[in-house]
Amino acid sequence: MAEHTMTLTLEKISAQVLNKVTPSQKEREEILSLTEKLVEKVKVAAEKAGVEAEVRVEGSVAKDTWLREEPDIDIFMRLPISLPRETFEKVGLKIAKQATKGLKQVERFAEHPYLEAFTENSTRINIVPCYKVKPGEWVSATDRTPFHTDYAMPRLNEQLRSEIRLLKRFMKGVGVYGAEIKVGGFSGYLCELLILQYNSFVGVLESASNLRDAWLIDYEGYYKGRENELPKIFEEPLIVVDPVDKGRNAASAVRKEHLIEFVAASREFLQNPSLEFFYPQETKALSSNQLLSEMKKRGSTLVFVKFGQVKAVPDVLWGQLYKTQRALRKMLEQNDFHVIRDSVWSNDQGLNILVFEVEHGRLPLVKKHLGPPIRKKAECENFLRKHVCSAETVSGPYIEDDRWVVEIKRKHNDIVTLLHEKLRDGGRQVGVAELISRTIGKAFKIMVNEQVMKLYSTEPQFAKFVTEYLNAKPRWVKKTHAIKV
Amino acid sequence: MAEHTMTLTLEKISAQVLNKVTPSQKEREEILSLTEKLVEKVKVAAEKAGVEAEVRVEGSVAKDTWLREEPDIDIFMRLPISLPRETFEKVGLKIAKQATKGLKQVERFAEHPYLEAFTENSTRINIVPCYKVKPGEWVSATDRTPFHTDYAMPRLNEQLRSEIRLLKRFMKGVGVYGAEIKVGGFSGYLCELLILQYNSFVGVLESASNLRDAWLIDYEGYYKGRENELPKIFEEPLIVVDPVDKGRNAASAVRKEHLIEFVAASREFLQNPSLEFFYPQETKALSSNQLLSEMKKRGSTLVFVKFGQVKAVPDVLWGQLYKTQRALRKMLEQNDFHVIRDSVWSNDQGLNILVFEVEHGRLPLVKKHLGPPIRKKAECENFLRKHVCSAETVSGPYIEDDRWVVEIKRKHNDIVTLLHEKLRDGGRQVGVAELISRTIGKAFKIMVNEQVMKLYSTEPQFAKFVTEYLNAKPRWVKKTHAIKV
Repeated sequence: MAEHTMTLTLEKISAQVLNKVTPSQKEREEILSLTEKLVEKVKVAAEKAGVEAEVRVEGSVAKDTWLREEPDIDIFMRLPISLPRETFEKVGLKIAKQATKGLKQVERFAEHPYLEAFTENSTRINIVPCYKVKPGEWVSATDRTPFHTDYAMPRLNEQLRSEIRLLKRFMKGVGVYGAEIKVGGFSGYLCELLILQYNSFVGVLESASNLRDAWLIDYEGYYKGRENELPKIFEEPLIVVDPVDKGRNAASAVRKEHLIEFVAASREFLQNPSLEFFYPQETKALSSNQLLSEMKKRGSTLVFVKFGQVKAVPDVLWGQLYKTQRALRKMLEQNDFHVIRDSVWSNDQGLNILVFEVEHGRLPLVKKHLGPPIRKKAECENFLRKHVCSAETVSGPYIEDDRWVVEIKRKHNDIVTLLHEKLRDGGRQVGVAELISRTIGKAFKIMVNEQVMKLYSTEPQFAKFVTEYLNAKPRWVKKTHAIKV
Repeated sequence: MAEHTMTLTLEKISAQVLNKVTPSQKEREEILSLTEKLVEKVKVAAEKAGVEAEVRVEGSVAKDTWLREEPDIDIFMRLPISLPRETFEKVGLKIAKQATKGLKQVERFAEHPYLEAFTENSTRINIVPCYKVKPGEWVSATDRTPFHTDYAMPRLNEQLRSEIRLLKRFMKGVGVYGAEIKVGGFSGYLCELLILQYNSFVGVLESASNLRDAWLIDYEGYYKGRENELPKIFEEPLIVVDPVDKGRNAASAVRKEHLIEFVAASREFLQNPSLEFFYPQETKALSSNQLLSEMKKRGSTLVFVKFGQVKAVPDVLWGQLYKTQRALRKMLEQNDFHVIRDSVWSNDQGLNILVFEVEHGRLPLVKKHLGPPIRKKAECENFLRKHVCSAETVSGPYIEDDRWVVEIKRKHNDIVTLLHEKLRDGGRQVGVAELISRTIGKAFKIMVNEQVMKLYSTEPQFAKFVTEYLNAKPRWVKKTHAIKV
C-alpha cells in the first residue's frame, strides 16, 4: 500500500516535471528553425573562407533531449584533418564569428577555441570546430561528438527522451549537472548513457542509491568478463565506458564528491519524492544582521581572500581557483590553523573570493615541537645541541613519553599576517595557480568575519553564496526528510 | 687524550661528591649511637607491651650506604605471624610511639601504619612493624626488608658503598630518586642492586645510556636462559628481579618517564660530567613581572585548579592527585581542549593545585560532527533523521569526502565553565579520585593566567613550581651541553 502511494507520487512528480521540461511542438519548431538558419550561415561562412566543412547539429537539440527551460544549440563544423592545428583554430573561430554576426559573442576555450553566441532571448549557441576523423583516430577533443550523436540517435525513443529529461533536471536541481570544471558533474551525454543502461530515470536512481563500491557501466560490453580490470584502467570513481571509444571514460569529469551527492540525493528522493529535488527553492540571502548573528553563533574565524579579474576562460579559471584553494588550505593547515571548511566564489565581473573558516584566527605563540625518541642516541644529541641554546626555544627541551620535546616560538600565529606574507608576491611558492598568482601579486584584500559586511550588502550573489555556505545543507535535504522514515 | 681528560674530570667530580656525601667517622658514630639508643627503646617498649619482637636496624644506616646530608634511620620490629593483622598494626604503632616519646611524631601509612619521628636536628626515624616470616612466605609488604639487608650486607665493601652513594646522589640531583608515589623513582635498595650488577656508578650510567629497549637485570640468574620471559611476567619498563624474591620486580615503582630521564641524564653526564648533576642549582622564582611576560610570550591559557586539604598520607595523596590530573586532562581533551602540558603541586599546609595549559581557553561554538560513510545506507538515514531537525544543528548535514557531516553546537566552549560544571559536585563522574572529590565537592577555585598572581607572590614554593613548569627543562640540561659534542 505504502509502495503504491509512493509510486503514484513518483508518477505525479515525474509528470509535473516533464510538463515543465518538455518543449512544446511550437518551441521545438522554433529552436529547429533557428538551428537550421545557423547551420546555413555556418555553411556559407565556411564556403566564404574557402574551407571544406561538414556542418552538423549536435548535442541535446540534435537528439531532442534538451530542457525546454534552457535550450543550448551546438553546431559543429567538421574540418579536414589536412588543416594544420593553428589554421584549424583560427579558421574555426573566424567562420563562427562570421556566422553569428550581430549576436552577442564570447570566445571560449576547451581544448581549442570555440565561439559562444547568444540570441536576443538568451538562447545559447555554441559553434565548435572539430576534425573529420574516423572513429578511434581522434585528433582534437571534440572529434568524438558527432559519433556520440550518431550513436545515441537510433537508440532513443520518445519514452527514453523523457527519462533523460527527468534525469537531467534532477541532476541540475541537485547541483551535479555539467561536465565543466566549475561543476565537475554529469554531462548530457552521460545522462543519455545512464538512461540507455537502466531504461528509466528511477532505474538510474535506484542503481545509484544501492551503490556500495565502484560504479562500473560498460553498455557495449567491451570489457565483458574482465570488468574488474576497469578500475585499474580508469581512475575515476564512476566509470562509464564510452560506446564510441572504449579507451575513454565518459564519466571522467565527475568528481567523487558529486557522485556521492548524487547517490545520497537518489536515496532521499526515492524515500521522499518531491518536486524540490528538480526545482530547489532559491536561497534567500540572510540580512546583514542575520549574518552577524550567524557568525557570532559559530564563534569561528571566517577569512575571505578577495582578488580581481583573472584573464581566463571559465574552465581554466575554475581549475586555477580550485588549485589555489587546495594549496592555501594545505598551507594554513601546515601552519596549524584548523580549517573547518573552505569554499570559493567567482562572478562574471572579475571578482573572486576564497573563503577559509578556521577554528581560531590566532594561535598561541608557543608550539610543541617533537624531537627524537630517547633510544635514538645520536639524534637526541643533535636535538639537544640545536634547541638548548636556540633563541626560538620557549620551554624545554624536556622529556615527554619516550621522546625529547621542545616548545618553540611559532613563526605565524595570526592567519591574516600569515596570508599577507605568503600572498604578497603572488603566492607561487605556496602553490597559488599561475594566472591567479599574477592577479594576486598586484592586489588582494583579506577580510575577517564582519569585515565582509560591506561587500555582503552590495553584492547580492555573494550574499547568496555566503548564506549557502553558512547553511551548508544541500538544498534537497529538507526538514520533512527527518520526519518520514 | 680527550678520553683521558674526561676520566680525570669524572674522577675529580666523583671525589668532590664523595667528599660531600660520605659521613665522617664522627658522624657515623653519632648516628649509630642514636640508632642503638632507639633500638633499645623499641625493645623496652615491646617488652612492656608484652610482644615478642625482634628489633633490627635496616635500610641505609644498617648497610652504611646513607648520604651524609640526610640520614634516615629505619628501625624494624619483626613480630610473630601469630598476631592478627589488626593487633599487629595497633601494637606496632603503640610500641613506636612509646619508643620515640618526646620526639616529633607523624603517623604514616604504606601498606600498614608505621611511625615517622624526627630528632631535634631533623634526622628522620622510621619505626616500622613487619612479620617475622620465612623467605617467600611474605605476609605484609615490609617483611622482605630484613632479607634485603641480610642480602646486601655481605656483598658490599667500602668501594661499592661509595659507588652506591654516588649513584644515589646523582639520582637525587636528576630528580629520580625515591620509590614513593610522588616521585615514582629508584629506591635505595634498587641503587644497591644496580651497583652490585655493574660494580660502579659509571658502569650503571653507561649501561643506562646505551639502553635501547627493555632493561632487564637478574643478578641471581633466576631466569637464566629465559630472560625473554621477563617482560611477560613483569610489566614495568625496568625489571630488576629481587634477589630475595624472584617473583618481585625490585624496580616496580620506577615510572617509565623517570627511567627515561635517568637514561637521558646518564648520557648527558657521561658526555659532559659536571657537579650540577648531583647538586643542581636551586630554581630562582621569576618575579611577578617576569611571570606575566612569560605568560604573554606563550600566548596559551594556563588554568589553575586550587583546592584545600585532602586528609591522606603522602603516598595516598599523590596517587589521588595523579589520578585526578589524568582524569581531568582526559575530560578536557574529550571536550576538544588541546592540552599542551599539565602538572600538579601540593604543599604540607594542605594546599593543592592542578595546572592545565591549553592552546585555547575558548573554542568556537560550532563543532564538526562526522557521520557515517555514504555506503552505509541505513546509518545515513538515521543520521539525517537525527540531525536535519535538531536544535543542536548549526550547519548541514552535508557531504564531505565520502561521509555525512553535521556542524553542531558545542556543549562546552569555555574551559572555566566546563571545569566548574564538572567539578561542582566533586567530579567523581569525570574520574576525580575519591578523597580529592570530597575536598573539591566542598570548595575549589579556578584561576586563569594572571589570576594566579596573588597566590604566586605569597607562596614562594608555588612560585618556584610555576617557574620550573614554565622553564620545563630538566635542571641538568645546561646551555654548555649545546656547545660541546
